[in-house]
Amino acid sequence: MRSISGAASTSSVPYDAVIVRFGGEIGVKSSPVRLRYERLVVRHVRRALKARGIAFTSLEYSFGRLYVRSPEAGEAARAIARVFGVSSASPALSTSSDLESIAQTGLELARAFLSPGESFAVRCRRVGEHPYTSMDVCRLLGERILSELGHRGLRVNLDEPDKEICVEVREDKAFLFAETYPGPGGFPLGSQGRLIGLLSSGMDSPVACWLAMRRGCVVIPVHFDLRPFSDDAAVEKAVELARVLADWSIGLMRRMYLVPHGEVLAEIREKCPEPLTCVLCKRFMLRAAARLAELSGADGILTGDSVGEQASQTLRNLRVIDEAAGGLLVVRPLMCFDKTEVFELARRIGTYDISARPDAGCEAAPRKPTTAADIGAVLEAEEALDVEGLVERALSAIKEIRLKWPAEEA
Amino acid sequence: MRSISGAASTSSVPYDAVIVRFGGEIGVKSSPVRLRYERLVVRHVRRALKARGIAFTSLEYSFGRLYVRSPEAGEAARAIARVFGVSSASPALSTSSDLESIAQTGLELARAFLSPGESFAVRCRRVGEHPYTSMDVCRLLGERILSELGHRGLRVNLDEPDKEICVEVREDKAFLFAETYPGPGGFPLGSQGRLIGLLSSGMDSPVACWLAMRRGCVVIPVHFDLRPFSDDAAVEKAVELARVLADWSIGLMRRMYLVPHGEVLAEIREKCPEPLTCVLCKRFMLRAAARLAELSGADGILTGDSVGEQASQTLRNLRVIDEAAGGLLVVRPLMCFDKTEVFELARRIGTYDISARPDAGCEAAPRKPTTAADIGAVLEAEEALDVEGLVERALSAIKEIRLKWPAEEA
Repeated sequence: MRSISGAASTSSVPYDAVIVRFGGEIGVKSSPVRLRYERLVVRHVRRALKARGIAFTSLEYSFGRLYVRSPEAGEAARAIARVFGVSSASPALSTSSDLESIAQTGLELARAFLSPGESFAVRCRRVGEHPYTSMDVCRLLGERILSELGHRGLRVNLDEPDKEICVEVREDKAFLFAETYPGPGGFPLGSQGRLIGLLSSGMDSPVACWLAMRRGCVVIPVHFDLRPFSDDAAVEKAVELARVLADWSIGLMRRMYLVPHGEVLAEIREKCPEPLTCVLCKRFMLRAAARLAELSGADGILTGDSVGEQASQTLRNLRVIDEAAGGLLVVRPLMCFDKTEVFELARRIGTYDISARPDAGCEAAPRKPTTAADIGAVLEAEEALDVEGLVERALSAIKEIRLKWPAEEA
Repeated sequence: MRSISGAASTSSVPYDAVIVRFGGEIGVKSSPVRLRYERLVVRHVRRALKARGIAFTSLEYSFGRLYVRSPEAGEAARAIARVFGVSSASPALSTSSDLESIAQTGLELARAFLSPGESFAVRCRRVGEHPYTSMDVCRLLGERILSELGHRGLRVNLDEPDKEICVEVREDKAFLFAETYPGPGGFPLGSQGRLIGLLSSGMDSPVACWLAMRRGCVVIPVHFDLRPFSDDAAVEKAVELARVLADWSIGLMRRMYLVPHGEVLAEIREKCPEPLTCVLCKRFMLRAAARLAELSGADGILTGDSVGEQASQTLRNLRVIDEAAGGLLVVRPLMCFDKTEVFELARRIGTYDISARPDAGCEAAPRKPTTAADIGAVLEAEEALDVEGLVERALSAIKEIRLKWPAEEA
C-alpha cells in the first residue's frame, strides 16, 4: 500500500480512528510470544498518545489489528507510526457495517482525496458475516464515486491506481482510509533486553542504536567526551543525537551518560606506541561501558563499527578491542552495512543533519593507525598505564543528562 | 540512473565496451587505500571475465572509472555487475570524441532503445578539452534522434524520461550507453580478512555470509550436519547455498566444510538439561569453528543470528554462546535486521528459493529452550560431556566439498 501525502483538502477529513498494523516479524511468532509482543506494542501506543497529549477514547484489539478511537486521529496516526513493532498506521473514518453507511463515508473520503483526472481503486477486506460480499462493497462505492464525483474526470484503475480508497469491515463496524504512514516495524522496545550504546557525534552510532531499538533493545547512550582532543561541538552533537533517539523511545531512554575520555587519550599518547592509539582508546571505552553495563544490568555493549570503514576497524583490531569487554557481548548492527545504507537510515531516523554538522573529530588519532593489532603488544603497551585508575577516574566524573520525552516538551 | 530491461531489439546492439563504476564507499577512502581497492576490483573483474570465458581486449582505468573493451560487452557487463566493489556496469558503444561520430553512434543506440511514443533525455559527461560543450552534445544528439526517428512519436523529457541515452566523453574517446546493471557495491573480496561462516540450510546464514563478502571478507562456509536430528535435504540445501555464494566469490570461495554434529547433539540430549540444548549445541559449533579459524588463519566466525528471531537468540544466550569461541571475534551481520529485509536480500542474492525449500529442521530443539542461559549452569552442564573429545571426533570426520567457480562449470 502506498503512502499518500494527500490532496489539498485531506486535513479537513474528520478522522475518528486509527488502524494500526503490527510488524511482520511479530506475526510469525508462536501465539504466546506474539500475544506478549502485541500487548507490549499496544501499551507503547497508549504511552505515545498520552505523552504527546493526543486524546483517544479506546484501543480495541481485534483480528490481529489495533483500532484506536481518537478525535485527533490524523495526529495520532503520525505518532503511532513512530512506535517500534508497528508496521503502519492509517487514520480512518469509522462507521457501521451497513452498506449504505460505508458508501456515504467512502464518498466523503473520495471527495477529500481524489483530485481531478486521477484514477482510483476501491479495496475491501471483511471479517464477519454480512449480507454482502467484499466485491459488492467495491462495486457500490466505486459506482457511487463515479456518479457523484464524475465531473472531476475520475476513472477506475484496479492495477495501478493513483489513489486507493480502502474499506475494512470488522463484524458490525467499518473503517475507511486512504492514507497510510509506514512504521518502523521490528519488535516492541523492551522485549529484548538492554544495551549500553556507544554514541559518538558521527553518522554511524546513532543509526546502530536505532537499529537495536527497532529490534526491541532498550539502549542507554554513552558518549565518550574526547576534549581536549575534540571540541564542544562534538559533545553537543552527541547530546542532540541522543535526544532524537529518545524521541523514538516511548520514554524508555531516560538518560544518557557523558564519560570524560581526555585523560585516557592523553596518557595513551604520552606512554604508548602511536599506531596503537585507536585500539587502546576503544579498549578503554569498552572497559568503562562494561562497568556501566554491570551497574545498569545491561546485557551487552553496542557500537557503530563497520568492517573496514575506518583504518582501525579491521577484523583483527576489533577482536583485540573486544578482549577488553570482559566477556560482555559486543553488538555491532552496522558491521556489514554499506555507507549509503547508513546515510539512508540516518535521514529516515532524523539524525542525518546533526551528524553531518562539522566537529573537530578526534585530534588524537594517529596518521597511520595499526590495522592488525596484536593482543600481546597491546597488553604490553597497557602495562605503561594505570588502567584501573584511569577507568575509575573517568567513571567517577561521569555526567548524567536527562532525556525528556517526548522531545517537544524539552 | 534506472536499469532498463530494454526494448525488443537491444540484444542486437553491437556493444564493444563496458563502463564500470566503483562502489561509493571506495570513493571516500584516502587515495592509497582507494587505489589499492580499485586495483583489487580491476583484478576481480578480469578474473570474472576470464573464468566465464568472456572475451575482452583491454581494461583501461581512467578518471575513476574502468573501461573494458569486449566483443561480448553485454554479457561482460552482467558478469561484472556481480563483482563486489562495483556499484554498476553499463554495456556501451565506443567511438571517437568527434561530435558527428557521437551523434551517429547515439542514433544507433536510440534506434535500438526508444520504443514508439516514449520520452527520452540525452545526458552527457565530459572529461578533457573539446571544441564543444556537454550541452552541445545533448542538443545535437537530441535533435538528430527527433529528426531521424520522428515517425516513432518520440518526445524529449529532461525531468522524467522513459529512457536515457548517455554519453561519456573521455579525452579523445566517447562511450554511449542506455542501460545500467546495478552492482553489489561494497569492498573488493579479500580486502578485509577472512571469516569462518556458519551456514545452515535456512534463510539467514547465506545472507549473512553474502553481506560479509560484500564488505570485503573472504568467507569459508561451514555447515554443521545435524543428522540424525535433521535430514539429507538440510545438508543438500546447505551445499547448494554455498554454491550460490561461491558464484559471487570470483573463485575465492573454493571449498566448504561439513562437520558432523549428530553425536554432539545426541550427547547433549542424553546428559544435559533440555532447556540448555540450543545454547550448548551452538557452543560446540563455535568451538569447532574456532578450531577451523585457527587452521585456516581466519580472523573470526560469522553467524546469521538476529536478536530475538528464535527463542534461543537472546542477548544473554548469545553472550554465553560466544564464551565458547575462545576470544575469537563473532561477527553477526544480521543482528538487527528485520526478517523482511533478509528475505529481500535473499531474493537478490539468489538463495531465497533454496532456503525456502522444506527440510526437517532440527529435531533436537526443545519445545522450551532457555532464553536467559547462565554461564555457571552451562559450564556445569558441560562437565557431563567429553567436550574436547567430541570436538576432536567431529573435526576428524570433517568433509570437504570443492566449490567450482563459476558455477556454470560445476
